[in-house]
Amino acid sequence: MSAILCLNAGSSSIKFSLYRYSPDASLLLTGSVSGLTADQQYLTYTSYKSCGEVLESIKNQEIDCPDHDSAFKVFMEHLDSKIGEKRLLSFDDIYVACHRIVHGGSNPRPLLITEEVYHELDILSDLAPLHNQRALDIVHSCISRLKGTKNVAFFDSSFHMTIPRHIYTYPIDLDVQKRHQIRKYGFHGLSYAFISHETADYFGVDEDDLNIIALHLGSGASACAILGGKSINTSMGLTPLEGLPGATRSGSVDPSLIFHYHSDSSRMSTASSKDVHLTIAEDILNKRSGWQSITGTTDFGLITKRAVEENDERAKLAFDMFVDRVSMYVGQYWVALQGKAVALVFAGGIGEKGKELRAAVIEKVSCLGFTIDKELNTTASTTSDVIFDVSKKDAKLKTLVVQTDEQLQMAKEVIDTRL
Amino acid sequence: MSAILCLNAGSSSIKFSLYRYSPDASLLLTGSVSGLTADQQYLTYTSYKSCGEVLESIKNQEIDCPDHDSAFKVFMEHLDSKIGEKRLLSFDDIYVACHRIVHGGSNPRPLLITEEVYHELDILSDLAPLHNQRALDIVHSCISRLKGTKNVAFFDSSFHMTIPRHIYTYPIDLDVQKRHQIRKYGFHGLSYAFISHETADYFGVDEDDLNIIALHLGSGASACAILGGKSINTSMGLTPLEGLPGATRSGSVDPSLIFHYHSDSSRMSTASSKDVHLTIAEDILNKRSGWQSITGTTDFGLITKRAVEENDERAKLAFDMFVDRVSMYVGQYWVALQGKAVALVFAGGIGEKGKELRAAVIEKVSCLGFTIDKELNTTASTTSDVIFDVSKKDAKLKTLVVQTDEQLQMAKEVIDTRL
Repeated sequence: MSAILCLNAGSSSIKFSLYRYSPDASLLLTGSVSGLTADQQYLTYTSYKSCGEVLESIKNQEIDCPDHDSAFKVFMEHLDSKIGEKRLLSFDDIYVACHRIVHGGSNPRPLLITEEVYHELDILSDLAPLHNQRALDIVHSCISRLKGTKNVAFFDSSFHMTIPRHIYTYPIDLDVQKRHQIRKYGFHGLSYAFISHETADYFGVDEDDLNIIALHLGSGASACAILGGKSINTSMGLTPLEGLPGATRSGSVDPSLIFHYHSDSSRMSTASSKDVHLTIAEDILNKRSGWQSITGTTDFGLITKRAVEENDERAKLAFDMFVDRVSMYVGQYWVALQGKAVALVFAGGIGEKGKELRAAVIEKVSCLGFTIDKELNTTASTTSDVIFDVSKKDAKLKTLVVQTDEQLQMAKEVIDTRL
Repeated sequence: MSAILCLNAGSSSIKFSLYRYSPDASLLLTGSVSGLTADQQYLTYTSYKSCGEVLESIKNQEIDCPDHDSAFKVFMEHLDSKIGEKRLLSFDDIYVACHRIVHGGSNPRPLLITEEVYHELDILSDLAPLHNQRALDIVHSCISRLKGTKNVAFFDSSFHMTIPRHIYTYPIDLDVQKRHQIRKYGFHGLSYAFISHETADYFGVDEDDLNIIALHLGSGASACAILGGKSINTSMGLTPLEGLPGATRSGSVDPSLIFHYHSDSSRMSTASSKDVHLTIAEDILNKRSGWQSITGTTDFGLITKRAVEENDERAKLAFDMFVDRVSMYVGQYWVALQGKAVALVFAGGIGEKGKELRAAVIEKVSCLGFTIDKELNTTASTTSDVIFDVSKKDAKLKTLVVQTDEQLQMAKEVIDTRL
């Protein structure tokens, strides 16, 4: 058997999924190690029989692993023991390991990681000090632990390389932009590629004919205008900081704000390390802002509960801020698509689970013709359907909830392009 | 006779208008000194008979005055000589001098400038180092040269004090926001107040019932959502830097961009002085960006000509960028007003003169129902009507060109509130 391993390293977690190298990319196992920046780490793990039935399931097992490489080792050891008992597969069966890398510069497609490419990715880390390093650690783990496996880098920025020049260019000195590779890149691209593909399928149209506004709302949040299946604008920019606020990210603010916040903000932050060069400003705006700085928690579900059920003032403020900023992007991208959007898609942790958030956003943008069915909207948060329509019956414009899957998107691209 | 002197100090110019203190605020004279940051300064000046006929007109007379105080002195001397010849009025007749001040903190209305208020305004200069200092220089000139005249500060931020909390709050630490007076303030408020008043008049509705999207597009550019005659959102923020790009301003960019542009951007700029504390970052983003940094000129009319007639690549890029950013705000504010806007208003130098810009923006937002009549649009750029409708015949949604007048707005407020 030949398998595809898909790895998705966040700042405090790593997700891994293993798929059969077959036209349907059937899932063999999926799991995660979380809590990598906390005191205690947890392993979650489910493996499947070929018929799709669960073989084994572990949830939040306490484990001890201090960093991403150890987390990968834990996963490998676990997989190895399973191989011993059940012969799920051997390490040699892992034909390709796919790595989700946030910042890919202007690369429009995945890259086979040669020594040269690894070096290029390392340089790109300067552009995304907060985002690429973890993924590169895992690439390194794979190279040293899976000798016969090809490694491929998938970039969250690739999907946005179709954005026109006058939109990706900033109104600053053009020579400086060229010299320092400054431009709007955009992120969450694997998610948007998945959404675009699945939504086109759902409508039974060719992806080239699909016009939608997509929202990937999680602890990092962004919006994307998709015309003819291609990104023509997105809210994130040079880095994931621009655009919508997130759990600890400010999103777009007055560019001079940080100089009023901290008098020496371009000095290196104490959070800098050998690998991560980070100014105080970037540390504050990426890690000490967002809804956590308003409410004290990163958990938007909890914020919603406090806002809706307890009428908590700060929670309500954070909730209303997010609804406002999201609905402003829907308005922008309605115009960007010249009114041709056929659906508004909610995805990402908050997009998928947050029925109150969806209801509030749809109310704000109802003037564009979007509607929501209260009952379907409630059901959507508990269903496992990849696409769930929450629009009112007979709505011309659809409001969809999509369970996006970045790992599956990588596996599909491997299979589709016969990588 | 009692008169109202209105003063409007920009970074390189000062405009002055003198009105009769009468219900119609009839114009006695208006003029400007320009080129205050260049080698040569120019005086422009027109005085009027009580019937409205021109009494005397001077255009771009070369004069020699190195700073704002000297410019004010030139104007006073000129006025004094006129007073001698024609008995237009005596200095004692100037009952009140109105000063347009960009940043007024959270002040919702004009303030009589006492010693205490002057001190308060001086402190506010920290919040707006680039914008308030010139106006304060002129306040100082007035106090010392017009002994019997009351001085009143009008703030460009006041009109936006109706913006709801969840919109004016940034997704950053709330205590820091409070301590450093960080919030969205918004600017161009005198212009928006004028537009709101005149547009309500034009439609024959009460200002409280007016819902419009207004664009003040000049070398500084902003957009405003006006619901019931009140600002509910605007594109500028803590400072005028946020939002749309301008002649030398970047507008909103990824907040981390500047740390990729310049490694020590929070260091004080060489443009700093005793009165103006300015970081390198703020200097770059406010004075060395915008369409000048793309095309080499601050003149948007010239950029438009090069883009449209000569197909010049960089001019086209700057033109398309501006059209894109402006139309994205129209989309946002359409949603902010929940689709209830009755008109889109173009004002400011580019808004009033730029027929190509208007046509391009309206084409982008036509999906919302806005239209433009080609012939009327051309006429609008040459008319002196305060309001000119350029919509297609029978358009339900109006596209208006408004000749905004910040000085007249101040005079009207003096008269209306019997200041």
